[in-house]
Amino acid sequence: MWLRTSCEMSFEISVPTPFILMLRLRSGRQQWVASDEYMLTPIIPVMEFTDGYGNLCQRLVAQPGPLTIYTSAEVMTADYMDQSPGAPFVDIEYLPDEVLSFLLPSRFCESDRFGQMATAIVAGKALGYDQVKAIEDWLRNSIRFEPGNSEVPISAVEVHARQSGVCRDLSHLGIALCRSLSIPARLVVGYMYGLEPMDLHAWFEAYVGGRWYTFDATQTELRSGYVVIGYGRDAADVAIYNQFGPPVSPVVKDVRVQLLEKRHA
Amino acid sequence: MWLRTSCEMSFEISVPTPFILMLRLRSGRQQWVASDEYMLTPIIPVMEFTDGYGNLCQRLVAQPGPLTIYTSAEVMTADYMDQSPGAPFVDIEYLPDEVLSFLLPSRFCESDRFGQMATAIVAGKALGYDQVKAIEDWLRNSIRFEPGNSEVPISAVEVHARQSGVCRDLSHLGIALCRSLSIPARLVVGYMYGLEPMDLHAWFEAYVGGRWYTFDATQTELRSGYVVIGYGRDAADVAIYNQFGPPVSPVVKDVRVQLLEKRHA
Amino acid sequence: MWLRTSCEMSFEISVPTPFILMLRLRSGRQQWVASDEYMLTPIIPVMEFTDGYGNLCQRLVAQPGPLTIYTSAEVMTADYMDQSPGAPFVDIEYLPDEVLSFLLPSRFCESDRFGQMATAIVAGKALGYDQVKAIEDWLRNSIRFEPGNSEVPISAVEVHARQSGVCRDLSHLGIALCRSLSIPARLVVGYMYGLEPMDLHAWFEAYVGGRWYTFDATQTELRSGYVVIGYGRDAADVAIYNQFGPPVSPVVKDVRVQLLEKRHA
Amino acid sequence: MWLRTSCEMSFEISVPTPFILMLRLRSGRQQWVASDEYMLTPIIPVMEFTDGYGNLCQRLVAQPGPLTIYTSAEVMTADYMDQSPGAPFVDIEYLPDEVLSFLLPSRFCESDRFGQMATAIVAGKALGYDQVKAIEDWLRNSIRFEPGNSEVPISAVEVHARQSGVCRDLSHLGIALCRSLSIPARLVVGYMYGLEPMDLHAWFEAYVGGRWYTFDATQTELRSGYVVIGYGRDAADVAIYNQFGPPVSPVVKDVRVQLLEKRHA
Repeated sequence: MWLRTSCEMSFEISVPTPFILMLRLRSGRQQWVASDEYMLTPIIPVMEFTDGYGNLCQRLVAQPGPLTIYTSAEVMTADYMDQSPGAPFVDIEYLPDEVLSFLLPSRFCESDRFGQMATAIVAGKALGYDQVKAIEDWLRNSIRFEPGNSEVPISAVEVHARQSGVCRDLSHLGIALCRSLSIPARLVVGYMYGLEPMDLHAWFEAYVGGRWYTFDATQTELRSGYVVIGYGRDAADVAIYNQFGPPVSPVVKDVRVQLLEKRHA
Repeated sequence: MWLRTSCEMSFEISVPTPFILMLRLRSGRQQWVASDEYMLTPIIPVMEFTDGYGNLCQRLVAQPGPLTIYTSAEVMTADYMDQSPGAPFVDIEYLPDEVLSFLLPSRFCESDRFGQMATAIVAGKALGYDQVKAIEDWLRNSIRFEPGNSEVPISAVEVHARQSGVCRDLSHLGIALCRSLSIPARLVVGYMYGLEPMDLHAWFEAYVGGRWYTFDATQTELRSGYVVIGYGRDAADVAIYNQFGPPVSPVVKDVRVQLLEKRHA
Repeated sequence: MWLRTSCEMSFEISVPTPFILMLRLRSGRQQWVASDEYMLTPIIPVMEFTDGYGNLCQRLVAQPGPLTIYTSAEVMTADYMDQSPGAPFVDIEYLPDEVLSFLLPSRFCESDRFGQMATAIVAGKALGYDQVKAIEDWLRNSIRFEPGNSEVPISAVEVHARQSGVCRDLSHLGIALCRSLSIPARLVVGYMYGLEPMDLHAWFEAYVGGRWYTFDATQTELRSGYVVIGYGRDAADVAIYNQFGPPVSPVVKDVRVQLLEKRHA
Repeated sequence: MWLRTSCEMSFEISVPTPFILMLRLRSGRQQWVASDEYMLTPIIPVMEFTDGYGNLCQRLVAQPGPLTIYTSAEVMTADYMDQSPGAPFVDIEYLPDEVLSFLLPSRFCESDRFGQMATAIVAGKALGYDQVKAIEDWLRNSIRFEPGNSEVPISAVEVHARQSGVCRDLSHLGIALCRSLSIPARLVVGYMYGLEPMDLHAWFEAYVGGRWYTFDATQTELRSGYVVIGYGRDAADVAIYNQFGPPVSPVVKDVRVQLLEKRHA
């Protein structure tokens, strides 16, 4: 499945403003970036680095005036997302070292507060993939999904209190529940083909059966069409942009995902 | 200044229990580990790895029965802790890549909620070291320090609501305030000579003037005698031990720090 | 200066052949990748990872039949390459940890064998940048540059014996000489605008005055137009492709670098 | 098996001399460091860092006068070294990313020059462990082992020409042969109980059957008693000490390995 993704954001900058962007796609499992475009208007010096999760990040200082960031990519993604009912829980002692930090509580996923609740939700399920699936189902049935983008991220505890949330919020709660059962879980931010209304999207992955699997409580079933931008412990780690100093919001934000009928690759 | 530190913990294990320990000291700035002892009784297989913050961690699975962990070290520490009033704020664009993640909110340091409060606390101060000093002073005067160890870690928002806390809590609030001003800050866990009552200790560091400096709101002034065990974004990253499965608590926990009069180095 | 670079290679594969490619450009100092294209024909699964030097590498197994790899990019590069006569030698104790490995001898840069020779070449020069410049001048005057691509890489000792070499060979000898004076040096592989005959190019960087500077003994003076593909200790680390099993050579290899007159950025 | 290891080196320093030491043991597979001592006389500031292979390294600048470095440790090592005849070759595509660099040629292991020879040596052997075993046997029978320490490291090509070498030299040739067959191999430096004459030792590991296995052509059979100090691509990466400036040699070098009869763990 070939997709063309694009994201355009425009800002009005009033004072020199440092940004850290995370908008450069990387190739990975189930995703090959065949082309990639990244335009800043005006052109300003940018330094790129790899963060602790392997995401490519761009550092820049925006000068007063308009700033437009436009990225697009052509990506081949898997026709079917891997699923694996019955995939077993991985004992802590067999988890790879680099997966361990995804067991810890984080800013928006207070997994240290959800032990009892998670245990109740997964009662009777086989340890591993089926537990995560039960969590995903529970989220779908218990937390009202509100499409669109909330202003300020809220944490799993707050999502649970509010009983509703955007895609990111449902993911945070799902991650907190998984981790409280000693299942590593991480947030994914990216694009999704066919999302209504179109916007950036967030979902989560859990580590069972020796690898990461995709879960998304905002969809009725796991379809293909996901394009990953970045991974992290939660939204604090995976912000499309982090901006320092007096807050600025994009005056334009335009996200598109298009199916490419065929591609002479 | 030569110190001998030791920490002994005993557990009663009822079911096989995975642990991740962080008790191996590392040499670093202002700290040289001249000798180091690490004993597990009974002896069980251990794997050691370095986490994303450079801490040495040990993985093991404790078997049912008693488990004792004993570590001790002889460490040379600086006679005076570096201080640098007037050290400037480092513009985001000049921060080293690896320092950037210490600007982000984390589990126990919701820096995204403290912008206004931090601005009020540091009003009139020069940007940088003096702001952090003002935060440290404010903590000392406004949040009642309760020596000892709380059961469950609470977050900066909760500490602020409660107006009191243990060393870790004051540090979390200090870190959240620093980060909300775009000053990188991290939690340090370790030993402190002369601490009353003796226990493990927590303080924080802020990155100003091109390096990390030590701050500790639980002490009236910055004395020497600190021995670092580990660094992290907050207590979620720097736990002396993380234990999975049914919770077990140490039945014995004995921490000592002794001054070594002289040492034929 | 906007450049469009492209590299196309075609292979005839007879048995399943694992490849590790290093053809994805990264943004960095003096280089911004505004767009990037990467096409494999036929399309086969690829995994991407970051190597120990920060290069993006692609792993794949080519199946029997033709394989074409085509990459292109639009890159903004600096109009002038930084030069800094007089920039001082950095004492070993002040070198960043991650630079230290560029002091060690490596496969094609036997710096442990060039101490006396290097000392003679830089006699009378100020420590640092001027020493490297003297080495570059000496290479230009003493080792005959043979444009084109040698089949098998040879080492600095062999280059010196032969008194001639391709761009990579001159760089290897330059690197070995720098390291023998305790100046960190690394190989760079990439594109160069205006290179005659056009091909991939190799040059070297030395760490003096607190940063990396570009040197190229194959050119009479340092012009702009360099586009970096990868960094490493020497050609063993920075191969455009590493291929395992029975050797295959590209039947087509077409490299282009074009000046883009102007670009609506 | 409990061992006490120690290494003492004394230098006479005439000008300020930067050193990078690699003498701090780490716990790992088949090795648990229960205690560790590290003494410098006189005491001088030291910074410790982890290199790209996970080794703990110490940086210091020795001042004119005598310098003594003494390290000792109590280590529990495996009673039997793992061996696995028949363990299969790992296809390149399944090698972990971090193992790939051990396929490349390096300073003292010119694996790019040994393809034919390696193929002849392992003729008829099953791919994987048995090939490495055949290489080890061939080394034992074909290259005369000279106990003791050579002054200057020589490369695999030179060892092969000379038909004799110290432990490090045999290992370098073994590594070059393995890598030329696409089997990852690395040098290990450490202690060995019962070595005659006692000194630091070097051996090699090859990655087959999904993990690293130990090989040592200097011994008639694989006994227990190995204590690892460091890993690397070859001796360029794993020097017990790297020293910069005018060369200094230890005036005293005393290495000991003692069996500890029993240890109240």
